[in-house]
Amino acid sequence: MKTYSKNQLRRYPVYLRVLRELEAKGNGFVSSNQIAQLVGNSEEQVKKDLAAVSDASGMPGRGRDLRRLVHDLEAFLGYHDVTRAVLVGAGRMGQALLDYPGFQQMGLDIVAAFDSDPVKIGTRLGETEVKDVATLEEFLSLEHPDILIDCVPASAAQAIADIAVRNKVPGIWNFAPTVLDVKESTIVENVNLASSLAVLSHRIKPLLS
Amino acid sequence: MKTYSKNQLRRYPVYLRVLRELEAKGNGFVSSNQIAQLVGNSEEQVKKDLAAVSDASGMPGRGRDLRRLVHDLEAFLGYHDVTRAVLVGAGRMGQALLDYPGFQQMGLDIVAAFDSDPVKIGTRLGETEVKDVATLEEFLSLEHPDILIDCVPASAAQAIADIAVRNKVPGIWNFAPTVLDVKESTIVENVNLASSLAVLSHRIKPLLS
Repeated sequence: MKTYSKNQLRRYPVYLRVLRELEAKGNGFVSSNQIAQLVGNSEEQVKKDLAAVSDASGMPGRGRDLRRLVHDLEAFLGYHDVTRAVLVGAGRMGQALLDYPGFQQMGLDIVAAFDSDPVKIGTRLGETEVKDVATLEEFLSLEHPDILIDCVPASAAQAIADIAVRNKVPGIWNFAPTVLDVKESTIVENVNLASSLAVLSHRIKPLLS
Repeated sequence: MKTYSKNQLRRYPVYLRVLRELEAKGNGFVSSNQIAQLVGNSEEQVKKDLAAVSDASGMPGRGRDLRRLVHDLEAFLGYHDVTRAVLVGAGRMGQALLDYPGFQQMGLDIVAAFDSDPVKIGTRLGETEVKDVATLEEFLSLEHPDILIDCVPASAAQAIADIAVRNKVPGIWNFAPTVLDVKESTIVENVNLASSLAVLSHRIKPLLS
């Protein structure tokens, strides 16, 4: 099996986005050079990245078949399969994710949401019913979702992760601002706003007066 | 000036979090090895990362002074200074960010929010008044914030970025799922949920039945 670095994996959805935009504008072909300019990477990197997931190689003076490239990227990213997720923590961040229009396109189906707040339990957010977090463990053991989206406050995030690990949920998508301690058999991907802000703040420093 | 890779910058808030947790538990000292285990990196990397931002070197058998290390990390990350931001797009994602309790600790002050929805304009979200996005350009030219947080739908994100660039806002924190085209004098940091999901989905693949 090929191996891909995290940074490389992160680039594929960005390629897909610019390719879809080109397709929507009526283009049928695209060159590596065009893609490189649109995403701001080197042409060499674009060629290497695309070769790893698609054999839609370019024809001289014409470029690559755009529709085929889009298809291959979607297939590689798993967008043609359904990934079943549960979301825990229906606060603003959780609600923002339940509302996020892009997930359906990515094959991500949030099948249930959980919260501990009696005011929220039983209500619907979009198409998803908010269930009592006390029933989370039973739900996981019966429904075996692929991903648990952890959107609870930092102080509660580890307890939720423990329930996921106990019930062998393969992946935790962690939006809680804390480091989760899980067994190696569970994969954690953190969306860390503090880390993202650290990069931005450092890079704008020379521009501040 | 020292240079730091993006990945290295991303690690500092994670170190800071585990160090604060240790401090809250009453610890006064910490070893590189302890930190390495808590964050899941190698001890060698922890030593190198910390040496680049703090001279709180460890004493054999005792470790580093925790309070000093926390102080040095906060100072490096700019948490002791105020970074002024405006947020554009008061949808669920924007509201989640306005509510995010961690920003104050990071020195990030969201001084104003903007939206185009007449129902939202004039309301308050937490302590922040939502203003008409038609007044954004004037606000930027008068107030010179450090960061514009772009939370509008993908179709509107570039137009907002253009206004930021025209008014020389140093940094754009982009939550819109699109690639922004900006001049080199403006720094863009993307929070790309699709990229994060791509990493998670790929890594859990071998675990799916």
